[in-house]
Amino acid sequence: MDDDRLASLETRVQKVEDELAILRLLHSYGPLVDSGSTVEAAALWTEGGTYEFSDGDEVARLEAPLDLEKLYSSDFHQSLIATGSAHLTGPPVMTIDGDRAQAVAYSFVVVRDGDRWLVLRAAINHWSLIRSSVGWRVERRRNRVLNGSEESRRLMRKVAD
Amino acid sequence: MDDDRLASLETRVQKVEDELAILRLLHSYGPLVDSGSTVEAAALWTEGGTYEFSDGDEVARLEAPLDLEKLYSSDFHQSLIATGSAHLTGPPVMTIDGDRAQAVAYSFVVVRDGDRWLVLRAAINHWSLIRSSVGWRVERRRNRVLNGSEESRRLMRKVAD
Amino acid sequence: MDDDRLASLETRVQKVEDELAILRLLHSYGPLVDSGSTVEAAALWTEGGTYEFSDGDEVARLEAPLDLEKLYSSDFHQSLIATGSAHLTGPPVMTIDGDRAQAVAYSFVVVRDGDRWLVLRAAINHWSLIRSSVGWRVERRRNRVLNGSEESRRLMRKVAD
Repeated sequence: MDDDRLASLETRVQKVEDELAILRLLHSYGPLVDSGSTVEAAALWTEGGTYEFSDGDEVARLEAPLDLEKLYSSDFHQSLIATGSAHLTGPPVMTIDGDRAQAVAYSFVVVRDGDRWLVLRAAINHWSLIRSSVGWRVERRRNRVLNGSEESRRLMRKVAD
Repeated sequence: MDDDRLASLETRVQKVEDELAILRLLHSYGPLVDSGSTVEAAALWTEGGTYEFSDGDEVARLEAPLDLEKLYSSDFHQSLIATGSAHLTGPPVMTIDGDRAQAVAYSFVVVRDGDRWLVLRAAINHWSLIRSSVGWRVERRRNRVLNGSEESRRLMRKVAD
Repeated sequence: MDDDRLASLETRVQKVEDELAILRLLHSYGPLVDSGSTVEAAALWTEGGTYEFSDGDEVARLEAPLDLEKLYSSDFHQSLIATGSAHLTGPPVMTIDGDRAQAVAYSFVVVRDGDRWLVLRAAINHWSLIRSSVGWRVERRRNRVLNGSEESRRLMRKVAD
């Protein structure tokens, strides 16, 4: 019976550690992209992992690592870094199921404008995560700008799954 | 002795799991209300649970679930959803005592204004939570807008309790 | 063998509890300074602990508790409190090593301006923390405004350490 209790505790503690590890992964993203740590930021994804985001009326679909490295090296992104920016990932709602996990959180791009900071972009995100040999990685991240679209609300509703 | 160690670990892990469960509850709120998931949002409270918030110079006191469902169905709230909004709950400070818990956190209502987002409301919140047969629920949430009032500062000071 | 498993679990649970205790410390900061809880805010640091932050082109270096109590009692800080402010600490990335820990997070000073709130300051922070006889305390906090400086990016990159 003690063995059952030990095994049960080990499973529960593993799950808690997984949740904290995923928090760490998600909250590393901002400081990496805002400091120009392009390779490290793209390496938060699995190879072949995707980042989909709304871009005006279109949806861009980028693949890790090369497309993401290109994104974070772009003139637009580099100008955010030079101006002073925070890619803030809000506190997520997470569900872990063995070697897979889901997370939902808001994100904000906050950029300096003279002696104030503006919210240049506010979005909702849904991440599909997978445990790899080097720890948790993003397999798919979907990001939709907060403009009242049905697609943005569909991602939000995933917190109730 | 091993039994004591096991029992102590079980209590400690339970408390950690409770803290993560409450984080999940608090951070579900935004995506639920911003996606129009009215019934699910109101169900974060116990039946009869209350949500008090400053509304101009008055304090509104709503009761779950009906008053809250009315609030989230109102024209004002529906216009926020259609415009694009984030009801962001900041990272809380939490105290758990058995089947009861307290949490304090800032909250922000961030709303689209053309191609930028504005902070329409910033507030401090104090939640009283209770463990129910279906998990943690909000028994009472107090929210005071950040306008320098003594009442808002009184809620903030609860992090030192 | 069961003893090894118990000991391993105890170490792992301690680390998780440490992480949650540090979250609590970091997220107490805002409500304490925004409510004028000057002594309690300064007591988040060890005696002799430091808070360095960029102030225009200079770097201010304050020592706890006296310099910090002076800062939070200053006319400037008191005017923020009277107007209505949130010193929001974003979700951190943390590394714990025994009785020492490091954390990196964005911070934002959000202040009321009529019926809206503005981001008066956005910064990146690096904390060095130490376990004391009364719990975790800040030994050194470095804060750099987000203005594209190399120093601000150097603090951000610490999430990859």
